Amino acid sequence: MDERALRRYADLIVEVGANVQPGQVVAVSADPDARPLVLACARSAYRRGARFVDVAYFDPLAKRIRLEEAAEETLDYVPPWHGERLLALGEAHAARISITPPVPPGILGGVDPARAGKDQLPFLKETFEVINAMTTTWTVAAWPSAAWASAVHPELDAEAAVARLWQELELTCRLDADDPAAAWRDRFAELARVAGRLTERRFDAVRFEGPGTDLTVGLLPESRWTGGTLETVDGIVHGPNIPTEEVSSAPDPLRVDGTVRSTKPLDVAGSVVEGLRVRFENGRAVEVEADRNADVLRGRIATDEGAARLGEVALVDRESRVGKAGTIFFNTLLDENAASHVALGNAYAFTAPGAEDRINRSAIHVDFMIGGDDVSVTGIGRGGERVPILRSGAWQL
Amino acid sequence: MDERALRRYADLIVEVGANVQPGQVVAVSADPDARPLVLACARSAYRRGARFVDVAYFDPLAKRIRLEEAAEETLDYVPPWHGERLLALGEAHAARISITPPVPPGILGGVDPARAGKDQLPFLKETFEVINAMTTTWTVAAWPSAAWASAVHPELDAEAAVARLWQELELTCRLDADDPAAAWRDRFAELARVAGRLTERRFDAVRFEGPGTDLTVGLLPESRWTGGTLETVDGIVHGPNIPTEEVSSAPDPLRVDGTVRSTKPLDVAGSVVEGLRVRFENGRAVEVEADRNADVLRGRIATDEGAARLGEVALVDRESRVGKAGTIFFNTLLDENAASHVALGNAYAFTAPGAEDRINRSAIHVDFMIGGDDVSVTGIGRGGERVPILRSGAWQL
Repeated sequence: MDERALRRYADLIVEVGANVQPGQVVAVSADPDARPLVLACARSAYRRGARFVDVAYFDPLAKRIRLEEAAEETLDYVPPWHGERLLALGEAHAARISITPPVPPGILGGVDPARAGKDQLPFLKETFEVINAMTTTWTVAAWPSAAWASAVHPELDAEAAVARLWQELELTCRLDADDPAAAWRDRFAELARVAGRLTERRFDAVRFEGPGTDLTVGLLPESRWTGGTLETVDGIVHGPNIPTEEVSSAPDPLRVDGTVRSTKPLDVAGSVVEGLRVRFENGRAVEVEADRNADVLRGRIATDEGAARLGEVALVDRESRVGKAGTIFFNTLLDENAASHVALGNAYAFTAPGAEDRINRSAIHVDFMIGGDDVSVTGIGRGGERVPILRSGAWQL
Repeated sequence: MDERALRRYADLIVEVGANVQPGQVVAVSADPDARPLVLACARSAYRRGARFVDVAYFDPLAKRIRLEEAAEETLDYVPPWHGERLLALGEAHAARISITPPVPPGILGGVDPARAGKDQLPFLKETFEVINAMTTTWTVAAWPSAAWASAVHPELDAEAAVARLWQELELTCRLDADDPAAAWRDRFAELARVAGRLTERRFDAVRFEGPGTDLTVGLLPESRWTGGTLETVDGIVHGPNIPTEEVSSAPDPLRVDGTVRSTKPLDVAGSVVEGLRVRFENGRAVEVEADRNADVLRGRIATDEGAARLGEVALVDRESRVGKAGTIFFNTLLDENAASHVALGNAYAFTAPGAEDRINRSAIHVDFMIGGDDVSVTGIGRGGERVPILRSGAWQL
């Protein structure tokens, strides 16, 4: 990509995603392979008046070496200063930019999945505390590293794979628009309208029905749907995901029942889980099967009590630019915006204000895709009435 | 370089330099361009039983962007979590491996030296607190990045420059020996013997005389000379510099007088200071002149009261492999081992045990080379007697 395209992308991330304010500290986390985007974001942030840009590279190859070499009983160790830095960023009301993938899909290929499941880094358990405190402006955006591009487009040579993935990112990130920032503000407004209509209905549950899937996800009385942007305690509106196509809410962690089949492969920090099937009883994932790497997800689910329960339910319609791309990106930021999904683990407090004591709590948050044109989504009203939400991927509300 | 050479080098750094112990946390700091050595050190450390290898890349290009773009009044800001991490590594009795150069020489070329002087990162003021507590095993070693190699060998193309610099590192790091670890243990023993003879003399001062130089550096009654290795509070012997050829001690910060001319260019975090002349009065640097980038050093000296006084005096003889290479490396780790030198700023407490209240204290430590074959070094005894220490670069003791 040329310098101009890189600068436009970095400006979008800094201005619309993290909405960096003058005097703010800006934390950027990334794979070292994303260095060109990191540097472009740094320049963009300083030009907007950032006080300091704190770059934290996490090296996925060092993670692989750890999983190959380190003693098993050390694999869940996380140096305390990683979480302390994150909490300090919260106290500083910093901007946080995360470049994804932190660990390219497949880079842990051949590593024992049970070992891989024990090492959650670079994910930090303090992440949700900081997100839920709404102190930081934050965003997640993608960089087409060679390792990721080759995993997405294995039929192409490395250079062509990167070029193709970059084209797909340009399209899904609306960089083809004359004014990408304005295009995103329009899309954010659309998502907010859909979320508003869903919240008004005060559904008791949503039900997913399709091949291999019949899952009912209970909602809390306080559950509300959000989409597009968040607002910090300081009143700064930011875009947590570039791109984003979803509206999401907090499930009742005690009322999830049925079986669900994942409609896309799922990358869990470098290990790709394929053909995932999960059965829930009274909110808990009681069976986890997969064609590949089930143990990685089982490892995650064993982290704590909340790790086997849902913290998010999210709906995506077929107008999604990510879904239209038709590509499996092996990356949650993209794939979760292609199809409706649920997440095991921690809930976002802003999706159920006033129910902070009843939403799910966990040190993990793992999204997996369960939606598609052949999966219908139906709202269940408090009186038991059934209201179509998505049919053949189209909004019915 | 081939895989085997890289592994030998990493093993030397991990085993002889940092002397990593089973169960120890290992912090590695480096320019992202040093990634191959970082990863090789990670593998070596895990194979020795490291609990976790915490890689912290500092991006010198992000530093350059900061200096180009950020508001002047923000340039001395250091996020508190950087120092807190370092103190936590001390509390954890970690091993610390620093790959140099953190910022390749000349990479800040064209940046206003006064601005560059304000931004000391990645240097942290907590460094000396941790070093002086003797809690961590630590080492500094070099990586021939393309940017550094091109600064050292500008007459060669990039690939040839890297190959040449790597050859020089192999030689100065004794990687040509059958057993580099054994070679270093021998050299450490030699340096300890020289240091012991110097300490026995209990000199009141050392005097440097040569072209442009007549400098008398007072010593404290407690000053002792050390060389080669250090020992932590846990009794772990480690090699703080690979390579090392110096014996050093703590000056009396109130008794340094005369003028001194630097015998090699000096890289200060990416800005090369050339033709440096400094005049001292009663311990204080009262005049700083240079042919290039004097302002960078003046900025450092203005940091605090101790920054204009000496914290180290070190002697190197002409048998030094670094000196014999005859190359100006624009890097303190190498250049300080080519010639006798002094350092402005903080003293190492272990070089004057019992005089912790009288050695120099500062947030900076900047070495500059003042020795050479044409600079004689003479010990001044407590009765005023003159004892030759170095003549034409050869030990006289």
